[in-house]
Amino acid sequence: MDSAPDFDAIRRAADRVRPYAHRTPVLTCASLDHMVHARLFFKCENLQKAGAFKFRGACNAIFSLSEEEASRGVATHSSGNHGAALALAAQMRGIEAVVVMPRNAPRVKTAAVAGYGASIVYCEPTEQARQETLAQVIEETGAVFVHSYNDPLIIAGQGTAALELVEDVSGLDVVMAPVGGGGLVSGTALAVSGLSPQTRVIGAEPEGADDAYRSWQEGRIIPSVNPQTVADGLLMSLGDLTFSIIRAHVEQIVTVSEEEIIAGMRHVWERMKIIIEPSAAVPVGALFERKVDLRGLRIGVILSGGNVDLDKLPWMLG
Amino acid sequence: MDSAPDFDAIRRAADRVRPYAHRTPVLTCASLDHMVHARLFFKCENLQKAGAFKFRGACNAIFSLSEEEASRGVATHSSGNHGAALALAAQMRGIEAVVVMPRNAPRVKTAAVAGYGASIVYCEPTEQARQETLAQVIEETGAVFVHSYNDPLIIAGQGTAALELVEDVSGLDVVMAPVGGGGLVSGTALAVSGLSPQTRVIGAEPEGADDAYRSWQEGRIIPSVNPQTVADGLLMSLGDLTFSIIRAHVEQIVTVSEEEIIAGMRHVWERMKIIIEPSAAVPVGALFERKVDLRGLRIGVILSGGNVDLDKLPWMLG
Repeated sequence: MDSAPDFDAIRRAADRVRPYAHRTPVLTCASLDHMVHARLFFKCENLQKAGAFKFRGACNAIFSLSEEEASRGVATHSSGNHGAALALAAQMRGIEAVVVMPRNAPRVKTAAVAGYGASIVYCEPTEQARQETLAQVIEETGAVFVHSYNDPLIIAGQGTAALELVEDVSGLDVVMAPVGGGGLVSGTALAVSGLSPQTRVIGAEPEGADDAYRSWQEGRIIPSVNPQTVADGLLMSLGDLTFSIIRAHVEQIVTVSEEEIIAGMRHVWERMKIIIEPSAAVPVGALFERKVDLRGLRIGVILSGGNVDLDKLPWMLG
Repeated sequence: MDSAPDFDAIRRAADRVRPYAHRTPVLTCASLDHMVHARLFFKCENLQKAGAFKFRGACNAIFSLSEEEASRGVATHSSGNHGAALALAAQMRGIEAVVVMPRNAPRVKTAAVAGYGASIVYCEPTEQARQETLAQVIEETGAVFVHSYNDPLIIAGQGTAALELVEDVSGLDVVMAPVGGGGLVSGTALAVSGLSPQTRVIGAEPEGADDAYRSWQEGRIIPSVNPQTVADGLLMSLGDLTFSIIRAHVEQIVTVSEEEIIAGMRHVWERMKIIIEPSAAVPVGALFERKVDLRGLRIGVILSGGNVDLDKLPWMLG
């Protein structure tokens, strides 16, 4: 039923999302440039509404619904940024949203979803419970399911961040994005290959959640098993849609240690004075770790989000 | 010798500073607007080079020096952002800078000054020691003294932030800035009254360091005595230049409690995903505290800086 999105889908998503999303700034930082010997252009999706790029995909999905679909509302399962993004986009269109969340979800996440007016249905913290609870919600309400990444409209929406980046910064050699389920990096790859085909796209993934790296190496989807990383937005496994786009358009996936993720996060906080979450720091950590030689190049970095618990910062937990 | 700067001085400063400083973004935040019932436009000088608006004044002073003056270098005393800003501006022009700092200055501050290539001369942590040590440095080196706020070129440079804000956002009813020695608020007032005379300028000051509030009330400079506040960039007393501009062009000065400063800081971190220091949160705290009724208005807020010790955040010290 779902077919892979193309560059035109990203153009359409950009038109659809424009009235609702921030066109986030692209920031530069001389001292970080100096540290990694490259020119970095940070696309600040941490400054996006609801604090992450996820709002773009959610908006594209919500505002693509027919009136009939919209009247039934939307539903999803999420323990993170997708739930809050979908809740806010639904609120903007004035429709119902139900988010299935595990009972042990952080209070800061449930508060965000509730704050945007969505209904929360709690479930046991297992994949099976999430699926079953969501199926029940959909059966009872008739709501439209919006998957957090393996969905053409979500992927196209996420690609609008890179579209803006490539429009705003000419001559990029590389664009880097973190990889979880692959929604951001696949949308990024579609946007970049459509608008600036000479620019390479590199995904960055935590060593402790390296299913995309292994899937890309082996040419088939290898699901995540018990992933362990501070980058809690990158625990999901690739989907068939995101994997096929990654195979076609992503040049390389690099893995990053926990130490470099946390160090990269702290460098950005200290030097750029912006708040990024650990998941957003993964490409930054990859630059510091020099897993791939990018010295002297012009590099776009998608800072994916900024939702952190300010009482539990990773450099305080060691 | 020094005469008060005027609006033309700010125009000239803008031309002088443009090649070196960031034109910082103006950010908005729907959830903060909702909380204070106003439209807020945040001029993000926390994203300025060296992490604070201070770089603008330092740049204007450094690049105004004659070749002869530049050859002698510059000197100042500072335990905060001015020292780092002057060091970076001097490095950009390729001249010497000496910063007199108290022995007990935080490591993060001394590291910033040293990192920009300035020489540090340590002194005892008293006002008298600072003055005497600086006088000795100037006698030995012939360096040009650049005061951190009571200097026409510094004031004019600081005013360029508000100039950009008023250029970028039309129809502002009010612009708010924090008040320490008064360099920022006086430059702001000159820029706003020159470019948008119908816009009111309001200064915000910690209750525990309210010398500007009292000076403004009584019509004469009342120096700070033993100020106590988390807003460590706002401890200084007004100077004659800054006071005369404040009297002429600032409509009102409001004071803010420590609790509201910290709460305002945390609101900005959580909702806007940007790092501001306590001093920058003082106008935000004033909005939350509703000391002055600004509901329904379009308000520019100068976020003055983002230099904080990430291991010692104020909400962790209670």
